[in-house]
Amino acid sequence: MYSDRFNILVQKLRLLPSVGSKSAQRMALHLLMRQRTGALELAQAIQDAVEHIHECSVCHALTELEVCEICQDSERDDALLCVVESPADVFAIEHSGSFKGKYHVLHGHLSPLDGIGPEEVGIPHLLQRLSQGQIKEVILATNATVEGQATAHYLVEACKHLPIRITRIAQGVPQGGELEYVDSHTLHQALTHRLLLNQD
Amino acid sequence: MYSDRFNILVQKLRLLPSVGSKSAQRMALHLLMRQRTGALELAQAIQDAVEHIHECSVCHALTELEVCEICQDSERDDALLCVVESPADVFAIEHSGSFKGKYHVLHGHLSPLDGIGPEEVGIPHLLQRLSQGQIKEVILATNATVEGQATAHYLVEACKHLPIRITRIAQGVPQGGELEYVDSHTLHQALTHRLLLNQD
Ligand SMILES: [Zn+2]
Ligand SMILES: [Zn+2]
Repeated sequence: MYSDRFNILVQKLRLLPSVGSKSAQRMALHLLMRQRTGALELAQAIQDAVEHIHECSVCHALTELEVCEICQDSERDDALLCVVESPADVFAIEHSGSFKGKYHVLHGHLSPLDGIGPEEVGIPHLLQRLSQGQIKEVILATNATVEGQATAHYLVEACKHLPIRITRIAQGVPQGGELEYVDSHTLHQALTHRLLLNQD
Repeated sequence: MYSDRFNILVQKLRLLPSVGSKSAQRMALHLLMRQRTGALELAQAIQDAVEHIHECSVCHALTELEVCEICQDSERDDALLCVVESPADVFAIEHSGSFKGKYHVLHGHLSPLDGIGPEEVGIPHLLQRLSQGQIKEVILATNATVEGQATAHYLVEACKHLPIRITRIAQGVPQGGELEYVDSHTLHQALTHRLLLNQD
């Protein structure tokens, strides 16, 4: 209102998810009135994160390394691959402690009406990874939403020719729910009772 | 989880008001996955704001100038001073368009149990300003909370010896409400129907 830089700060805070103009103004005032040092630390943390964190070249999760720690972990099962829609889903599944294989992170889900096809979500790279022969089972852990289900169905078709067991997390994930918000116990159930979708 | 810098970013985002660990994680992922350029702009906006925005030396609102635009505005009534708890309240009253005097922003409200007394909220500086003789009426626009009322009562006592009319915004502000969230119409009512607290 009285300061261009204040207005710019409010506007940029609105880039954060679920932050409207009123929240953004509160955040800006809070940073300037009560957290000036913290504000500078936040700015530095954002710059450091953007500079050093990128996608793992193997699984597309976020990492500071060329290949992420999970991909490099020789104690995890290379034959078991869990396919998710976002890095947040990797966090959620890791937090549940019920999976010891590797991951592949898509860029979201298929959404033909928005022009988001297999290429855009990174399915070619997943299929290339599957064709290398090391993976024996793919667990499709896309969200239990319409788009997540459609993406899973697409992948079942796309993998038909490969000698790979394809499963889908199933029991426990509530219909319409997004994986990121499911509790650990439910995720554990979903991973334990996964359903076989094609013939083995 | 896999990245120290990611964890630091999540931790620093929690400095924002009403942001818990789950929201902070969502924000961090959103910035890194979908808003990398915006994230750098946000970091820059925070740094610019902290560097250039400070308290007005006269009224303690936030400004990029030594003395803010409202204090400098010769078309506003220097004899009428509105006392508020925070810069957000200045925004709210300005937005209501029903006040053409000047402001004085306290550092919140008196809270003796938390060790926040007159000194901490900046009352000595307000009294010094009032003693200069230019101000004919003080409108106490502290929040309609217990602490805001107590702060207003304290100010009535502290100004007893001064030849100044002291009023309190009254009608329309709901009991327990915080000024920042009151709609413009209600603020207009509160300013129009202010009550005289001492004898004129
Ligand atoms: Zn990886
Ligand atoms: Zn000022």
